[in-house]
Amino acid sequence: MTDLALCDQLTGTLCLYDIDLPAAKRNVKVGKEVFSHPDARTTFKVTATDDLATALKGADFIFLSIQPGPLTMFANDLDIPLKHGILQTVGDTTGPGGISRSLRAIPIYFDFAHEIMKHCPDAWVINYTNPMTLCTRALYAAEPEIKAFGCCHEVFGTQSMLARLVEKHLEVDKPDRREIKVDVSGVNHFTWVTEATWGGRELFDLVDKEIGEPGFFDDLTEWSEKTLAEEKYFNNCSRIKYDLYRRFGVLGAAGDRHLVEFVPWYLSGGTETLHRWGVVATPSSFRLALHDIKNTPKDQAKAEATKKGASEDALHHTGEEGIDQMLAILGRGDLDTNVNLPNMGQIAELPLGCVVETNAQFRRDSVRPITSNPLPDPVFMLVYRVVAVQEMTLQAAMEKDFDLALAATLNDPLVNIPTDRAAMMMRELLQANKDMMRGWKL
Amino acid sequence: MTDLALCDQLTGTLCLYDIDLPAAKRNVKVGKEVFSHPDARTTFKVTATDDLATALKGADFIFLSIQPGPLTMFANDLDIPLKHGILQTVGDTTGPGGISRSLRAIPIYFDFAHEIMKHCPDAWVINYTNPMTLCTRALYAAEPEIKAFGCCHEVFGTQSMLARLVEKHLEVDKPDRREIKVDVSGVNHFTWVTEATWGGRELFDLVDKEIGEPGFFDDLTEWSEKTLAEEKYFNNCSRIKYDLYRRFGVLGAAGDRHLVEFVPWYLSGGTETLHRWGVVATPSSFRLALHDIKNTPKDQAKAEATKKGASEDALHHTGEEGIDQMLAILGRGDLDTNVNLPNMGQIAELPLGCVVETNAQFRRDSVRPITSNPLPDPVFMLVYRVVAVQEMTLQAAMEKDFDLALAATLNDPLVNIPTDRAAMMMRELLQANKDMMRGWKL
Amino acid sequence: MTDLALCDQLTGTLCLYDIDLPAAKRNVKVGKEVFSHPDARTTFKVTATDDLATALKGADFIFLSIQPGPLTMFANDLDIPLKHGILQTVGDTTGPGGISRSLRAIPIYFDFAHEIMKHCPDAWVINYTNPMTLCTRALYAAEPEIKAFGCCHEVFGTQSMLARLVEKHLEVDKPDRREIKVDVSGVNHFTWVTEATWGGRELFDLVDKEIGEPGFFDDLTEWSEKTLAEEKYFNNCSRIKYDLYRRFGVLGAAGDRHLVEFVPWYLSGGTETLHRWGVVATPSSFRLALHDIKNTPKDQAKAEATKKGASEDALHHTGEEGIDQMLAILGRGDLDTNVNLPNMGQIAELPLGCVVETNAQFRRDSVRPITSNPLPDPVFMLVYRVVAVQEMTLQAAMEKDFDLALAATLNDPLVNIPTDRAAMMMRELLQANKDMMRGWKL
Amino acid sequence: MTDLALCDQLTGTLCLYDIDLPAAKRNVKVGKEVFSHPDARTTFKVTATDDLATALKGADFIFLSIQPGPLTMFANDLDIPLKHGILQTVGDTTGPGGISRSLRAIPIYFDFAHEIMKHCPDAWVINYTNPMTLCTRALYAAEPEIKAFGCCHEVFGTQSMLARLVEKHLEVDKPDRREIKVDVSGVNHFTWVTEATWGGRELFDLVDKEIGEPGFFDDLTEWSEKTLAEEKYFNNCSRIKYDLYRRFGVLGAAGDRHLVEFVPWYLSGGTETLHRWGVVATPSSFRLALHDIKNTPKDQAKAEATKKGASEDALHHTGEEGIDQMLAILGRGDLDTNVNLPNMGQIAELPLGCVVETNAQFRRDSVRPITSNPLPDPVFMLVYRVVAVQEMTLQAAMEKDFDLALAATLNDPLVNIPTDRAAMMMRELLQANKDMMRGWKL
Repeated sequence: MTDLALCDQLTGTLCLYDIDLPAAKRNVKVGKEVFSHPDARTTFKVTATDDLATALKGADFIFLSIQPGPLTMFANDLDIPLKHGILQTVGDTTGPGGISRSLRAIPIYFDFAHEIMKHCPDAWVINYTNPMTLCTRALYAAEPEIKAFGCCHEVFGTQSMLARLVEKHLEVDKPDRREIKVDVSGVNHFTWVTEATWGGRELFDLVDKEIGEPGFFDDLTEWSEKTLAEEKYFNNCSRIKYDLYRRFGVLGAAGDRHLVEFVPWYLSGGTETLHRWGVVATPSSFRLALHDIKNTPKDQAKAEATKKGASEDALHHTGEEGIDQMLAILGRGDLDTNVNLPNMGQIAELPLGCVVETNAQFRRDSVRPITSNPLPDPVFMLVYRVVAVQEMTLQAAMEKDFDLALAATLNDPLVNIPTDRAAMMMRELLQANKDMMRGWKL
Repeated sequence: MTDLALCDQLTGTLCLYDIDLPAAKRNVKVGKEVFSHPDARTTFKVTATDDLATALKGADFIFLSIQPGPLTMFANDLDIPLKHGILQTVGDTTGPGGISRSLRAIPIYFDFAHEIMKHCPDAWVINYTNPMTLCTRALYAAEPEIKAFGCCHEVFGTQSMLARLVEKHLEVDKPDRREIKVDVSGVNHFTWVTEATWGGRELFDLVDKEIGEPGFFDDLTEWSEKTLAEEKYFNNCSRIKYDLYRRFGVLGAAGDRHLVEFVPWYLSGGTETLHRWGVVATPSSFRLALHDIKNTPKDQAKAEATKKGASEDALHHTGEEGIDQMLAILGRGDLDTNVNLPNMGQIAELPLGCVVETNAQFRRDSVRPITSNPLPDPVFMLVYRVVAVQEMTLQAAMEKDFDLALAATLNDPLVNIPTDRAAMMMRELLQANKDMMRGWKL
Repeated sequence: MTDLALCDQLTGTLCLYDIDLPAAKRNVKVGKEVFSHPDARTTFKVTATDDLATALKGADFIFLSIQPGPLTMFANDLDIPLKHGILQTVGDTTGPGGISRSLRAIPIYFDFAHEIMKHCPDAWVINYTNPMTLCTRALYAAEPEIKAFGCCHEVFGTQSMLARLVEKHLEVDKPDRREIKVDVSGVNHFTWVTEATWGGRELFDLVDKEIGEPGFFDDLTEWSEKTLAEEKYFNNCSRIKYDLYRRFGVLGAAGDRHLVEFVPWYLSGGTETLHRWGVVATPSSFRLALHDIKNTPKDQAKAEATKKGASEDALHHTGEEGIDQMLAILGRGDLDTNVNLPNMGQIAELPLGCVVETNAQFRRDSVRPITSNPLPDPVFMLVYRVVAVQEMTLQAAMEKDFDLALAATLNDPLVNIPTDRAAMMMRELLQANKDMMRGWKL
Repeated sequence: MTDLALCDQLTGTLCLYDIDLPAAKRNVKVGKEVFSHPDARTTFKVTATDDLATALKGADFIFLSIQPGPLTMFANDLDIPLKHGILQTVGDTTGPGGISRSLRAIPIYFDFAHEIMKHCPDAWVINYTNPMTLCTRALYAAEPEIKAFGCCHEVFGTQSMLARLVEKHLEVDKPDRREIKVDVSGVNHFTWVTEATWGGRELFDLVDKEIGEPGFFDDLTEWSEKTLAEEKYFNNCSRIKYDLYRRFGVLGAAGDRHLVEFVPWYLSGGTETLHRWGVVATPSSFRLALHDIKNTPKDQAKAEATKKGASEDALHHTGEEGIDQMLAILGRGDLDTNVNLPNMGQIAELPLGCVVETNAQFRRDSVRPITSNPLPDPVFMLVYRVVAVQEMTLQAAMEKDFDLALAATLNDPLVNIPTDRAAMMMRELLQANKDMMRGWKL
């Protein structure tokens, strides 16, 4: 809403749909404050509803951003695998936790797709929910004609990191991250930069320089323990990004906390191994704490104060690109950026139809992928495996089939426990999801 | 050179390489006139050489535009097939004539590629020679790391045609053809527009309107005979473009004279059938006449007068995009346009590596294809067949193998004569090319 | 029935289903004579029905052999294209006539498939009807779990021809055609022998010897005209088989009358060109004459006399392999032979699922394709194109869509007439099929 | 040699090539005893050489069975990974040990291929060396025209196991394992039975019955510890075979000791986890002990005594199929069995050219793969990943590139240690192979 308020080219109605109507209404209040802020350059009417059809009718753009199930389920996605020996740093995208979350989210997204095609088939749908890939994939599986894409800011972080390298090694002012042109290829949270330039200058030699510094890959356990103690769960040192570059010649292009979940190398030794790389795992208690915020009046007040906090001072851009994308789709300025879309050749080696993350052109009523550089063979295999697990998970969700869900899980890079243990884990996870697993025999 | 003279952002040296040094020198003279014209906004030093290495050393951009063999050979490419019952309208791209020409051009392009990688591996290579696809393909077959692409203005004509439909049916001023956004897919001279918009408005309903007009597809024999009598060989009525749209739902996106050569439907009935569609075939005598221009002093004078003609009055843009492409590659303004490049997924269904024509992004030191809409199955098969014939022709050129050349020819859409007749025809064609078929056993 | 009668390992009931019950009853009579013949080594109960369910219930094997539509329609399949300039020799497999026939046959085969899966899902289905490929394909398109395959004796002829070469050039007794081992690849009536051996000895050098004989490819017009005058429409000289070998290095493995219909080289010059190769086209009048046989009592008598003729003397094997295949499926002896089946890798370069002809293993309750040698590129393209036309034809039949049917036709190798002419032709063909085109808008 | 001696259809010379000539000579002695044994039904001249050309000249069949490097290296292949936390049961096919062994074997096999094509290009080459897949693959990578295949008895064990199920559950005499027809698909030691029949009866319901017995998957730690104590390293309980069936619906078709190395589920918990499944890991000391046998005179005597042992009593068939395969190739009886060959479509979903294990037809001078059933998606992904690691290993061997070798290793299913640890491990492994890593920079 802040980004919207700061853009003088758009106006209209913003309808907030939530199954928790009071929550939507709280956000209406926030919205009103934002749009009446002195910095605001436009205004939007903000309404709330818990009726999906009401929200969709007449919509031009639809932003999907949900929590698939209560936060207790998110906590389970972390705790149950951990009990069976599988540590996850985030647990919302891949790994047993990501699969569990996907099986909750996919049917909701099937419904979204059908309702959208019923009420506003020409609207553009922008997904922000994780698991990004499978949510976007589910929209297309349900309604192949839908105009949807998924957005994620993880690549921006890699661009910023490269901008810092430019500043440091070329001794210039730090460029804006948008000036760093990257060729991106992979799936969300497991994307890879295969080429990076700034003003036509290739940047991988700067990466070489950076990681060639003495002690660059030294043990970061101390840093990690401090970070954990300070509960700064989202900090990391980009060592995984760089380590992947060191091994494969292409740069991991998501946050380290995500990257480690797509390969078996950093997490299967447990927290100790992980901390050596300067990455910490978000504890489930933190996820649950967020939950409490919403439920105690005191915390609500605090949460809203935080939000208001921003608005009391100046309004600030969030750094997300949603508004720029909308503008480009409305024909107001071209935009080329990374996005999640069904594969139509942008990653030539992967199956058509699976959702991948690459650059795309945003133009008037059109979002079209740009072909990406081929990935090195070893990286391609890592990515293909993830795609295959996602497609199996989709299949399991469509057929509501436990054996398929287990088979998908056994193919997941983090799952190196015995099959009977894995079966037990999946049974517990799905049991814990029970309220959202309509039609499954569990 | 005119386009270059009209662009104020570039300067430098233009070295004209020709195996016929006097011809190059004549063009130096033309160049000097152009750059000293009062309209010129920049100047270039113009030199001539018949030594390739001299031309290449230090080059930033290389424009390839040659006649593969003397014009007598071009005439043979038309006359010999005609003798065996195969009529061709152009004969420089496909059909037996196109194959014959390809077999002459490919080894020359192999040499170009090797010399370029030896003398200026970082230079960008822009091909304008026909057969466009196989010339560009040969560069990559010889030197996979070359930075080359092929340019052709045929799609521009389709954009102009759509602009005229906008003017006529929407009753507005005719937009510039660049405002007509088209999704392009296929191979050079056999490209297809699968989607066209103007300011976000889809345009295929205008095409429907146009071809729905009474008598739209009426017999054009009279027009054709008049055109032939007036020697206006390059005129046509776009009926083929539209007829392909009528049958397949996507628009043929090259001139009719090219399109008819890629399918067996319009040419195998001879001139009479062809004329019904408002297309005329260029006679070989016309090609030979061009030849004479170069060789008689009088015609030379006339030819140069023609060229000068332009420069005596104002300098005019040619409508080609070469300069814009150079500027974009130099980082001076983004450009998205259609271009011929090896397939890296832009046409997902075709084999990787074959050269295709789609849209691409021109950016600083980068030309990257944009994924295109899938072609309808029947059109895909038409295109795939052409690609296959081209790959077989390349193979024949690499192995200098008559049987492969014949096998390629037998797969060509225009070849519906008995195999013994086709063998005789190919033998005559290659015999006529003898001086340029080094290493072949003929 | 003769083959069945000559096999002492099988007995049971043979139920003849026909929409023309009297015809079925006439065949019951023939059957009874066959099984009571002194040479018969077994007996079968022979019954007739015009109720499909009755025929199917309890069936172990189902032989499908129908005429898709009355013979007048078969005649139209020849006459209408001819009127528009397209000569066909057979007209039951490919070309406009084959497409027309396919569009009649496919819906019948959809019904067969559904009824079989309803009444006897474990039965094996053996198709003998042309168009072989599309009939078999339709069974699988309708019911993917069906156990069906298609049989054709054309390859046997090629084996016999090779056996004669062995006799002639190796100066031994002519071996049985089953001793000639061939690797077969393609689609029915457009199959290719890529390798042939006899007792381990490769045979292509004999083919080289044969075609190297002086005058081997001389003009056969005289022979053809004599053959035509004598109404020996099914004779041919195998020159096409050999000519394809000469051009592509692999042997055309169906009768010449079929082979010429899959390429544009022999038929588009009309009868004159065709006759030069020793091939004659069956006139539609001959097809209609067959029709009359069934309808005049006198001809019926004659036809039955013909059939009886055989039975008056000794019973003879037909040379078909149906009984051997049944025996192998019943576990009585292994059999490896060529057969039409959905592609599951036997022709690695073609799409999975399309029906192709290769060798297969017949074993107890199993028919499994054997991988075939890759086809040379130019032949692969010829075959792929045919497969594509067949898949488009299936699509047209499923969607009952005239435009798709026309688009398929335009891709057919024989169709080199203008698109408007082709559209007229297809409209006439489908109009003539009207009674069998339920659901089509024509 | 025993099998050869027991076959009355073959005779000739058996030339034993060994780089250790005394070893070859010892085997000549063994051979002479075997062929002079009263049970012998034929005789062969047995000679020894350490000159490869001498061995190859005039050969009809070549059996390749080597130890790629001294047994100390085999021991390293187990010990070094173990030191870094990776337990392997066999270590000769996959995992870091298998990759290390492959990098030693591949260049030897390149040499074999070149020498064979030089001295006896028409000979059939039968490989028995592990890593089976990569040794066979290397032959074809070096010499695409070679006539080679790889043989392994692991599938026979699965057939025997199924034969025991037939005996037990159908209460009949145990059938010969050859009567159990299996469809096999995968890569050597990671093959899968997708269908099994006995006399036409499907057998998977017997597997269901078997694993449905109470306590079937109970903990086998006790059994394993006893087995280990008794040094019966090659025993196992087939629980992995069955567990894979339980999870994926298709049967693991190699010994459990191999199967566990291709997935991360059973070994990454160390010996304890492994023992629960009734599998024990061969200790490196056992491999070294074999080594000593060859080197101490006493053990040599013992070893020869063991060999002689067999010959003192009756000669027994080994259960290998080599002789039957030779006979079939010589035209003496057809054979269909499983074998390792380059993929030409037998596993349609895998890349062409990679070496896979499926059924094949052995016929006169021909070994041709039979198409296999598609694998379930989750199993396909497991297999594809193994294939990809093998192809990367081949690439690393060809380019002698440490980074590629490491990248292959990181993709291996057993490698779940940090990348720096894995790099250290690979460096130590290759260092230990140093004498056999000519041309590598280590």
